[in-house]
Amino acid sequence: MTGRQLHLGVFIYPGGHHIAAWRHPAMQAQRITELGYYRECAQIAERGKFDMFFVGDALNAREREGRVMGQVAINNLDPVSIVSAIASVTERIGLVATLSTTYHEPFSIASKFATLDHLSGGRAGWNVVTTSDDKSALNFSRTHAMDKALRYERAAAFVDVVTGLWDSWDDGAVVGDAATGQFLDPASIHAVDHSSPFFAVAGPAMMPRPPQGWPVLVQAGGSPPGRDFAARIGEAIFTAQGELPEAQAFRSDIHARMAARGRSANSVKIMPGLSPMLGDTEAAAQRRAEEFAELVDPAVGVWMLTEMTKFRLYDHPLDQPLPTADIRASSPALNRNATTLVERAEREALTLRDAARIMVRSRVHQSFVGTPEQLAGHMSHWLEAGGCDGFNILPPLFPDDLATFVDQVVPVLQRLGVFRREYSGSTLRDHLGLPRPKGRSINTAGL
Amino acid sequence: MTGRQLHLGVFIYPGGHHIAAWRHPAMQAQRITELGYYRECAQIAERGKFDMFFVGDALNAREREGRVMGQVAINNLDPVSIVSAIASVTERIGLVATLSTTYHEPFSIASKFATLDHLSGGRAGWNVVTTSDDKSALNFSRTHAMDKALRYERAAAFVDVVTGLWDSWDDGAVVGDAATGQFLDPASIHAVDHSSPFFAVAGPAMMPRPPQGWPVLVQAGGSPPGRDFAARIGEAIFTAQGELPEAQAFRSDIHARMAARGRSANSVKIMPGLSPMLGDTEAAAQRRAEEFAELVDPAVGVWMLTEMTKFRLYDHPLDQPLPTADIRASSPALNRNATTLVERAEREALTLRDAARIMVRSRVHQSFVGTPEQLAGHMSHWLEAGGCDGFNILPPLFPDDLATFVDQVVPVLQRLGVFRREYSGSTLRDHLGLPRPKGRSINTAGL
Repeated sequence: MTGRQLHLGVFIYPGGHHIAAWRHPAMQAQRITELGYYRECAQIAERGKFDMFFVGDALNAREREGRVMGQVAINNLDPVSIVSAIASVTERIGLVATLSTTYHEPFSIASKFATLDHLSGGRAGWNVVTTSDDKSALNFSRTHAMDKALRYERAAAFVDVVTGLWDSWDDGAVVGDAATGQFLDPASIHAVDHSSPFFAVAGPAMMPRPPQGWPVLVQAGGSPPGRDFAARIGEAIFTAQGELPEAQAFRSDIHARMAARGRSANSVKIMPGLSPMLGDTEAAAQRRAEEFAELVDPAVGVWMLTEMTKFRLYDHPLDQPLPTADIRASSPALNRNATTLVERAEREALTLRDAARIMVRSRVHQSFVGTPEQLAGHMSHWLEAGGCDGFNILPPLFPDDLATFVDQVVPVLQRLGVFRREYSGSTLRDHLGLPRPKGRSINTAGL
Repeated sequence: MTGRQLHLGVFIYPGGHHIAAWRHPAMQAQRITELGYYRECAQIAERGKFDMFFVGDALNAREREGRVMGQVAINNLDPVSIVSAIASVTERIGLVATLSTTYHEPFSIASKFATLDHLSGGRAGWNVVTTSDDKSALNFSRTHAMDKALRYERAAAFVDVVTGLWDSWDDGAVVGDAATGQFLDPASIHAVDHSSPFFAVAGPAMMPRPPQGWPVLVQAGGSPPGRDFAARIGEAIFTAQGELPEAQAFRSDIHARMAARGRSANSVKIMPGLSPMLGDTEAAAQRRAEEFAELVDPAVGVWMLTEMTKFRLYDHPLDQPLPTADIRASSPALNRNATTLVERAEREALTLRDAARIMVRSRVHQSFVGTPEQLAGHMSHWLEAGGCDGFNILPPLFPDDLATFVDQVVPVLQRLGVFRREYSGSTLRDHLGLPRPKGRSINTAGL
């Protein structure tokens, strides 16, 4: 045993990560707009001593060629609002919300995450993403997605503004001296005066520095510019890695890119997505996988593939090989997730039906079908082999598959000595073992 | 007794509405960034059967000539995040957050309030404001505030987009038929396709129609364009009215403007701000007012006046009359709150010191100094005389002055038969007696 410890997140998704979760007999579909549903998931994860409760985002309803997909449980509640509501009914678990840098204002986003960090006592994290699809652009007064390079330049400027605002009040700026009437020390509060081709933001912030200094910066980019951005700002990285060698290579690559920027490998936690399909025996797990697979029309998976690759697959025969050459030719700039799937299809000679079935289960994230002991062994092996620092768990069905993981996998991980039995700290940085940013005197030298 | 009932909001403000609340011996200044502080206030208000918990917003830190005001408890947490956190720890009270139409994206704001309405079971309200100051502009990549007429045009377009998104899913669009695999009925989901000089938003929304149809639209404009906007969209109006005749005239004016648009007077609740400074006797209340007044340097009030009037008063002698002619001459377009104060100063021949003292207590809102019985009588009289439909309460100090109001004023109002003893419904619309918007078939005729 190396002594390294796993970090665990749970990625919340309406119904569950299997696209047909809402049809499962154990699910009550109408619950997915209710607070009680999110509260139950968060409290189960906290019982399991998870590092973080992670909420994704979308910026458009799911359509196929102009028509909303009637077979999909569309329900994208605002992620910051969900985690803010959850802050009141949890004590320890970290709260990570996704928010795009492409269409929002950095001053507002800085306020939101600082507020979450204050209200939660230092449990906030921001999953920093860019938005690449044209459909979302149409909801934000634009006709097309922003060019990729520009999107990442904007994201970098955005993060500079946000972290500058978080640092605009020194720790200790609030004096609160009722006797003298001095609430704060004006000399401890600084303008930001950011000016770039993207933003002009004066600052300072409107509230004290967050308890964690900065809410934890989570990142998920897989393409070369995405990796560079992750190496620059990421403190936790959510990634899709299907095979151990690939995961090891990804982790080494990120560490190398960080080293080039003077950042230590300890200052990042790399957490691939992992969908657990569990059973008491391998056969039972396999039966559960089949049970889910039967709930979904292959057309739904074909739609998901078309959306991801931006290559129209609706008329392609299901039992023919996925036309990977055509896909590559049509979209030279496939995103990381699409590339992962196309490479896997080539490697494994997948048909369109196979690929569709993979998509509906956990998109491009690895899906593990087996017993809790097998899964714990697998996770522990990846940790010890340097494939990851933890996992973001994608249960096929909420809350059942999360509860199964917490009740049956977590105890094995604890016995193996690779996962905490109790929280040792109170902030998300404590859980992840990340340092607290020191504030302006340090950060002006650059992240 | 007319049978009309009061509606009550509590306006949350860091520390309290008296600018020096944070210095009061009963206050622990560091609590104002903590969840427990907001939770305690919300739970007291809910115990008092208040209609709504109301959170304001600011978009810049408070400065005097480039330097942050060290004597003021600056702490503007994000309002939607606060009310989202409070949704989990309350059952009935309405949750109203302020959000500006000047610098945000309507698609995001529609999502936030729809989410709040879902998570809270129909308790959401949006206080729709515009942002008029240059300092805020500097935090949003602009050099000056938007022109007033343009700001209101933008606000109207903004509300059209947001309500269009809320109506983009018909009630009942979610079928959730696990047997057939039909989650929703695509024919019940509609594009928005808004296009105006301000926005182009395709829609539809990413989640079902909010439980209330629309979260309640709160408005606070006092100038003629503000009143027109309130008459067009407002369902609850937060206003500053110091004297009954003025309040009666304001309410009649709003009703007349609504009638011109075909809206019934029943579809709005007008709620002036009211700051209660209470004591068991009039003399005790007066002593409490003096106790607060002693906590604040007159310079703070002079700064607040300068900010509000945009006329520099720092060198004006405290015991000379407020230079109202100079103020009017320098700023021909004083906003409604500044006009209210200037008119009062002329009427009552206020010195700068007097005006500063008014500002630090409750800004331009009426401050009532007296016993709980006197206050209940005053409120009941305003209701019965048609001066209001309720009040937004601005306690000088949280949570103490809110608790005093709930424990000592609310029971008198209940005995007088002008305030509920129990909630009779579960949504904010139920509390306010407002109809639920019927959806697209109705609303295309134009609110």
